[in-house]
Amino acid sequence: MDSTEASMTEMDHSGATSFFQKAPPLKNGDLISEKLKEFVRRNLEGVTPRGIVCVTSGGTTVPLEQRCVRYIDNFSSGHRGAASAEYFVKAGYAVIFVHRCGSYQPYCRYLPEDSFLDFVQLDEASNIQVPDDHAATVRKAIREYHKAVGDGLLLKLPFTTIFEYLQILQLVATSINCFGCHSMFYLAAAVSDFYVPWESMAKHKIQSAGGPLDMRLNQVPKMLSVLRKEWAPAAFCVSFKLETDPDILTQKADAALKKYGMHVVVANLLANYKEEVVIVTQNEKTTVRRKSKDEDLEEQLVGLLTERHSDYIN
Amino acid sequence: MDSTEASMTEMDHSGATSFFQKAPPLKNGDLISEKLKEFVRRNLEGVTPRGIVCVTSGGTTVPLEQRCVRYIDNFSSGHRGAASAEYFVKAGYAVIFVHRCGSYQPYCRYLPEDSFLDFVQLDEASNIQVPDDHAATVRKAIREYHKAVGDGLLLKLPFTTIFEYLQILQLVATSINCFGCHSMFYLAAAVSDFYVPWESMAKHKIQSAGGPLDMRLNQVPKMLSVLRKEWAPAAFCVSFKLETDPDILTQKADAALKKYGMHVVVANLLANYKEEVVIVTQNEKTTVRRKSKDEDLEEQLVGLLTERHSDYIN
Repeated sequence: MDSTEASMTEMDHSGATSFFQKAPPLKNGDLISEKLKEFVRRNLEGVTPRGIVCVTSGGTTVPLEQRCVRYIDNFSSGHRGAASAEYFVKAGYAVIFVHRCGSYQPYCRYLPEDSFLDFVQLDEASNIQVPDDHAATVRKAIREYHKAVGDGLLLKLPFTTIFEYLQILQLVATSINCFGCHSMFYLAAAVSDFYVPWESMAKHKIQSAGGPLDMRLNQVPKMLSVLRKEWAPAAFCVSFKLETDPDILTQKADAALKKYGMHVVVANLLANYKEEVVIVTQNEKTTVRRKSKDEDLEEQLVGLLTERHSDYIN
Repeated sequence: MDSTEASMTEMDHSGATSFFQKAPPLKNGDLISEKLKEFVRRNLEGVTPRGIVCVTSGGTTVPLEQRCVRYIDNFSSGHRGAASAEYFVKAGYAVIFVHRCGSYQPYCRYLPEDSFLDFVQLDEASNIQVPDDHAATVRKAIREYHKAVGDGLLLKLPFTTIFEYLQILQLVATSINCFGCHSMFYLAAAVSDFYVPWESMAKHKIQSAGGPLDMRLNQVPKMLSVLRKEWAPAAFCVSFKLETDPDILTQKADAALKKYGMHVVVANLLANYKEEVVIVTQNEKTTVRRKSKDEDLEEQLVGLLTERHSDYIN
């Protein structure tokens, strides 16, 4: 490590410490720790060590006022994270699904977005009926979801703000540290780059009578380095890079790989992220394309990543 | 009207015109117009004129980039709008529910937020079952929802951005103009005050390497005046004022009443908006409080507003 990288790490470390000290305390932190402890205990029981993956999904928000009316949000439906969580369960992993409230959920991706009432009807005996063309999908979803939860392979932890997200990520990382190299982070959430520090935030709703609004946002400390080097040094770490400009995408992915010590960066463009991603490691750039509209790109992606993870373990 | 108010109106008018000229064009504008036309036709058929209300609900977003990754959002679950829509239908109104994608929906308020899969199970014959303690609620919701839609009393129009919201509001206003004083606007949506004009917006994702981010946001033109004076001059107009600071709430509500020519302003505080609102008109300030946790405040609120609307018609 050269001196530039070393000082970068120290900056990240002190930035992270200061960020957490000043963040509003996590509500339900004890309950989340309790759930994690139980989930870890159950999945450590088997003879062969089970893989465990923390899938993060959806966007984080940045409040602009302490009593929050307005906030900056990051676009992310959470579809990728939800689909990936399903394929990780199918591959035998225990999945901690850290997701934005209201984003897509595993096994729920084919259900209607706004209203499940358009989807169901009552028959003459007041039984709830799903139209025949959807019934098979809904039954499969219900069956697989309850199996995953019943088998102790799926734990869902919701977040909304950047403060909650990073605090939960730290709790998860320290909880699954005992899995060592069998743990994976699959960081698909769209995490805010900029935020307003809590203490400098307007207490009340910003008034709109006084002309244009000027805002200065600080950079969120780069927690990927801290996760990689302090919280979960033995884990296999996969992060995502979403850009809109194809000209800078792989360059940004390479930079993230090096700067944060990720094992894999999954690079994707907003324009076609459902169709194509590039798996970037130190030695490879592998393009993964969806073969048809009926296929989830995440099936191939998770397949390749679990292979890379096996190589990493062995 | 004194000269200050007159010039205010001209400013609003020119601000609105310029906002619409520069806004990205509404997707599905033709389809929305078609739906509105059919909904209006059906509800004009009866002998006695039916009341029609446009309920807006949920928060609008302000994109910060043209290929939108980040945006500013306004906190609003849409619970008030969804509940109110139900009570307006119950009171015999035709309801156009203009709502943020993913916010609460009428008749769906008691269903789980994140995952309906936690809510349903399969029995041994693979029939979909709702646990007994929820079954009655779910059956009632399904029945009432399908009745409202079947009777042609509920039309749902989704939006996400401030641009979509204001364009849809204008379409609705001009479509229901034929109902004259029998039309009502119940503007419960949390509408952005500040935005980044489309042409000055970053084309690509804002990069985070260059230190803090400075942003200048412009004020959104005050469309309430334009709605009231140009789009729907005969309609009964109810707007909402949400504040966090109790000291300025009624003063802000009074100002909105006067400035935008609203018939009613419903004033509420973020801290207790589910418990209490104040109905502010030129002649009254009536506090409405929820009597118990099992009651919707919106039942009383809609009751009082439909009375005021009757007085206005007669």
